[in-house]
Amino acid sequence: MLTLYSSPGACSLASHIALRDAGAAFELARVDFKSSQQRGPDYLAINPKGRVPALVTDHGVLTETPAILGYVAATHPEAGLLPADPWTRARMDSLVAFLCATLHVAHAHKFRGSRWADDPSSHEDMRRKTPETVGAAFRHVEDECLRDGPWAMGDGYSLADPYLYTVARWMEGDSLDPADFPKVAAHRARMETRAPVRAALEAEGLDPVSA
Amino acid sequence: MLTLYSSPGACSLASHIALRDAGAAFELARVDFKSSQQRGPDYLAINPKGRVPALVTDHGVLTETPAILGYVAATHPEAGLLPADPWTRARMDSLVAFLCATLHVAHAHKFRGSRWADDPSSHEDMRRKTPETVGAAFRHVEDECLRDGPWAMGDGYSLADPYLYTVARWMEGDSLDPADFPKVAAHRARMETRAPVRAALEAEGLDPVSA
Ligand SMILES: N[C@@H](CCC(=O)N[C@@H](CS)C(=O)NCC(=O)O)C(=O)O
Ligand SMILES: N[C@@H](CCC(=O)N[C@@H](CS)C(=O)NCC(=O)O)C(=O)O
Repeated sequence: MLTLYSSPGACSLASHIALRDAGAAFELARVDFKSSQQRGPDYLAINPKGRVPALVTDHGVLTETPAILGYVAATHPEAGLLPADPWTRARMDSLVAFLCATLHVAHAHKFRGSRWADDPSSHEDMRRKTPETVGAAFRHVEDECLRDGPWAMGDGYSLADPYLYTVARWMEGDSLDPADFPKVAAHRARMETRAPVRAALEAEGLDPVSA
Repeated sequence: MLTLYSSPGACSLASHIALRDAGAAFELARVDFKSSQQRGPDYLAINPKGRVPALVTDHGVLTETPAILGYVAATHPEAGLLPADPWTRARMDSLVAFLCATLHVAHAHKFRGSRWADDPSSHEDMRRKTPETVGAAFRHVEDECLRDGPWAMGDGYSLADPYLYTVARWMEGDSLDPADFPKVAAHRARMETRAPVRAALEAEGLDPVSA
């Protein structure tokens, strides 16, 4: 049995959607950020990093979005979430790593600046720069990563798709206009036509972002 | 033919070692950070992100350390750099993602703070905090990720090993004492007994860091 620890709309949504895409049997456990549950002793016993997502499996607890996505895909091969061709797989891994280490990290500087600096004025400085840095990351995704669709890797839906969708939901909150990133915006809308995405949004109490 | 764009001792060293571990035929191309070659038009035409590593392949250019490591391993299966068991693979992917998105990112706040903030005082603040944040990341690796060795994933050498080695070389520069992280320090020393590691260090003009 699998249990995914998640917080509504956080990066854990990617793993949540992938579990539904894979047809996996899983339970969703909500971590409440408002009461800082992610830093409480019960949750730290599950994930000492104090972050979501964490996937509890029969083997142990798995953390880090790229690893959870890869594990869900590898253990549900019939869902076809991993490109069989090594080059397509490599391009997918590259996008996933960029979303994790650059785009998500840029976004985190808006409200989590205290991870990397102590002074409130530094946090304010980081927060001010977020639209620029997150915007540059989406610009890279738009211009260099996305092909002609319909999916992130082209013809084949893959685990990069729920991840891209999840971070692209943050655009408006980071003061970006989706109209400036038409491929990302089209991908976002296309994702919301999928039943697993709609089910994941409903389970997390979230609305679709596309018109 | 493969060409790896790298800078001595940067995170590109992980991909460089993996190429040698895999027995791959490749050329090493040096990107000179002192003259900001990574931001010059020639290099931006190869990697618009302006970073190393970049691996030029017959299919196109691949960026992001986790993706390059995975591609080198997948295209040289005889080297056995990818755990066959999905759970071990997932644990390895988790460590790789953590090194990329948390440990390396923490380290980057020392000299690359201008990525995330504009004010020199913010950069100074970030720089001051680096030993704490990088130290916390190594603490996590030491206590939660490393098993009893000899390698990062236990018995089997994998692509997590050159990556861990590469970032662990940065410890002293980040004001950390390797003695506080005995498993990481032992891993570093063990890596330097390997012929591919010694060859990579020599090619980049680097000295071993272990006594
Ligand atoms: N590298 C991790 C990052 C996980 C992460 O930062 N999650 C955020 C939510 S998007 C979190 O749990 N933040 C809570 C906190 O920082 O207290 C991954 O990709 O899974
Ligand atoms: N997420 C990328 C990060 C690449 C990266 O930041 N590389 C550094 C060297 S360790 C770089 O090229 N820095 C040059 C600069 O920022 O100008 C990866 O893991 O490959």
